[in-house]
Amino acid sequence: MVKIAILGFGVVGSGTAEVLTENKKIIEERLGCEYSIKYILDLRDFPDSPFAELVTHDFNDILNDDEVTVVAEMMGGSHPAYDFSKACLEAGKHVITSNKEVVSNFGVELCSIAAAHGVRYLFEASVGGGIPVIRPMINDLASNKITKICGILNGTTNYILTKMRDEGASFADALAEAQKLGYAEANPSADVDGIDAARKIVILAALASGKLISPKSIYTEGITAISLLDTKIAEAIGCSIKLIGQARITADGLCALVSPCMVPKSNPLSRIDDVFNGILIDANMVGEVMFYGPGAGKLPTASAVVADIIDVIAHRDAEQKVIAWEEAKDCDLADFSEFSCKRVFITSAKLELPCVKQFVTLDGAFAYLTDEMTETEVEKIKTSNADAILSVFRVI
Amino acid sequence: MVKIAILGFGVVGSGTAEVLTENKKIIEERLGCEYSIKYILDLRDFPDSPFAELVTHDFNDILNDDEVTVVAEMMGGSHPAYDFSKACLEAGKHVITSNKEVVSNFGVELCSIAAAHGVRYLFEASVGGGIPVIRPMINDLASNKITKICGILNGTTNYILTKMRDEGASFADALAEAQKLGYAEANPSADVDGIDAARKIVILAALASGKLISPKSIYTEGITAISLLDTKIAEAIGCSIKLIGQARITADGLCALVSPCMVPKSNPLSRIDDVFNGILIDANMVGEVMFYGPGAGKLPTASAVVADIIDVIAHRDAEQKVIAWEEAKDCDLADFSEFSCKRVFITSAKLELPCVKQFVTLDGAFAYLTDEMTETEVEKIKTSNADAILSVFRVI
Repeated sequence: MVKIAILGFGVVGSGTAEVLTENKKIIEERLGCEYSIKYILDLRDFPDSPFAELVTHDFNDILNDDEVTVVAEMMGGSHPAYDFSKACLEAGKHVITSNKEVVSNFGVELCSIAAAHGVRYLFEASVGGGIPVIRPMINDLASNKITKICGILNGTTNYILTKMRDEGASFADALAEAQKLGYAEANPSADVDGIDAARKIVILAALASGKLISPKSIYTEGITAISLLDTKIAEAIGCSIKLIGQARITADGLCALVSPCMVPKSNPLSRIDDVFNGILIDANMVGEVMFYGPGAGKLPTASAVVADIIDVIAHRDAEQKVIAWEEAKDCDLADFSEFSCKRVFITSAKLELPCVKQFVTLDGAFAYLTDEMTETEVEKIKTSNADAILSVFRVI
Repeated sequence: MVKIAILGFGVVGSGTAEVLTENKKIIEERLGCEYSIKYILDLRDFPDSPFAELVTHDFNDILNDDEVTVVAEMMGGSHPAYDFSKACLEAGKHVITSNKEVVSNFGVELCSIAAAHGVRYLFEASVGGGIPVIRPMINDLASNKITKICGILNGTTNYILTKMRDEGASFADALAEAQKLGYAEANPSADVDGIDAARKIVILAALASGKLISPKSIYTEGITAISLLDTKIAEAIGCSIKLIGQARITADGLCALVSPCMVPKSNPLSRIDDVFNGILIDANMVGEVMFYGPGAGKLPTASAVVADIIDVIAHRDAEQKVIAWEEAKDCDLADFSEFSCKRVFITSAKLELPCVKQFVTLDGAFAYLTDEMTETEVEKIKTSNADAILSVFRVI
């Protein structure tokens, strides 16, 4: 009988208890072994919950109980989630998490502590909610060098952008609607400023390269400045605007960024709408594969947490390949000013722009699609035409 | 040093040798162990290949060599592929295959022999080419009951249907083009008659249910009868016609079929074009997830074969969860005549059809979208209006 502890009984934590209970019979059949939830750690009590009696307010109950071998951390935030995870790993307990803030900031240390103590630190639910992506990257693309990752990694912003495109809602109105539906927090900054997507793209980039970049250090641009004119022009040139986290792993080094991008209709990411997420991976043998599904939500995210729980229970007696990351150093990173891609310039006046492939006028504005340009070249154009330039988008 | 044998040096076999060689350094790093290809079995010689010296014409060289612990079968066809796979498993060698014909017809026996001999029989490449789908279904959706699978499982037919839709090509012209490009065989029956898709959907259904249905026993309809009028009407009602393999796992039992379907634009499968494949899975906790990528091709398919090779090498010293399937019995199967879904009737005259939600007229034809109807109800309508009915499509 494997005993599990849940840290944090919020949306994902309570969903995890629900999945473990609702599908207990089939999961135990697949595992050939029984399990039970022994503790749920939370500051609150839940007298009306069927799990009320499992609640403890004292983390030491879990830490000091040798019967508990699997701990699922779904508290959110860096502290005490990081501290509790570290203590559990050091105590020889497997730790599963959905917490991208902790993985993206402390992943190197926590993976290393797990390896040193012969246990595992797994985080499938930290990227893409319920979408299987982390384990498939590790296992199924193991025969490949991954060279590029582009993903719609945040459901809230994708919902807002879909509303703006399909219903002509303003950013402010679409955000208010997202908040009403519970997709966006009262303080929506982590979503709309791209911070959440930045945490996720550095995790994916680390899986591809072995180097974890600090999420705070990458270029991160959110969607607050996107206008309805931008979305109309995107449609007119056959694109959708999506908030994209992207990473490239080249001979020059690793580069990751988050920004709104023009996504041509021929790219499968252009058709991933509402709160869904999609992650497109280019790898040197398989070519292009995409993983799609619900990027958030109680039961979907819990489904991924429980997949990790099943993985550690199924392989509890076997030596497992550990995830060994290093902190990315400056010398590992490609020069961002050399980051090159096509762009769309939206301007209020006709301009002479290099490598123009196409332009449209709409509502008195002009749109220019350029060939590949580096960040430095774009900055030069922006500086010398500051008055006329309304917005510039990367194209994927 | 792990020694590998390759059976069959055709497209996928030579691709597997290429992936194992090209990415050898990173794969060995990931594995922490070295490997080499010791034999390639083929009837032909390949004097100009870098692998020429590994070629043998005698299967017994491989079977009787205890150094060879991993065998990748990519011969195609049932025999001798099945016989060689069985012999290798019985000799205690792990077997990897891309051969859907063998897995769909002999999977129960071969998985059982593998389990009895403490080795593994893996077949990621048998469905969806390079797309990770089988291992993710087993591992990442392990916390779920899978209730429904819908997939575009055959790249050749998807290429033909895309040509018909986007370029107004006739079925015959689009097929000729596919043959010219090497996507379709001189005898295209396995693709265009849905036989290949039937083999793949029974494999996916078995992963979800534990019961393998004989691929020859399921309802299988290909794309040879699809007309340009059908594709035009599909567009007019906001759908794409796709060849869909689908399976449903309900309390009433298991049901699998292959047929052209109307796929509404809101369904992500509607936008999977050309030779790409996509597999949409409904599961009780995660909801809907989709796996997308190249459904065939030398290096993509080889990428999946090598992922399986890496899996067996990485876990060669550990006890592994075995795949245990049973042959589906009649009592496991849902009554196909009760299979219920929405339909589109295309007719040459106005008809009184039940539950009509919408109809369009185009080129002198009428289209009716119905509510859910069973197969029996559809047959009744077809029989009593035989003269007027041009075609009937299931809607997913």
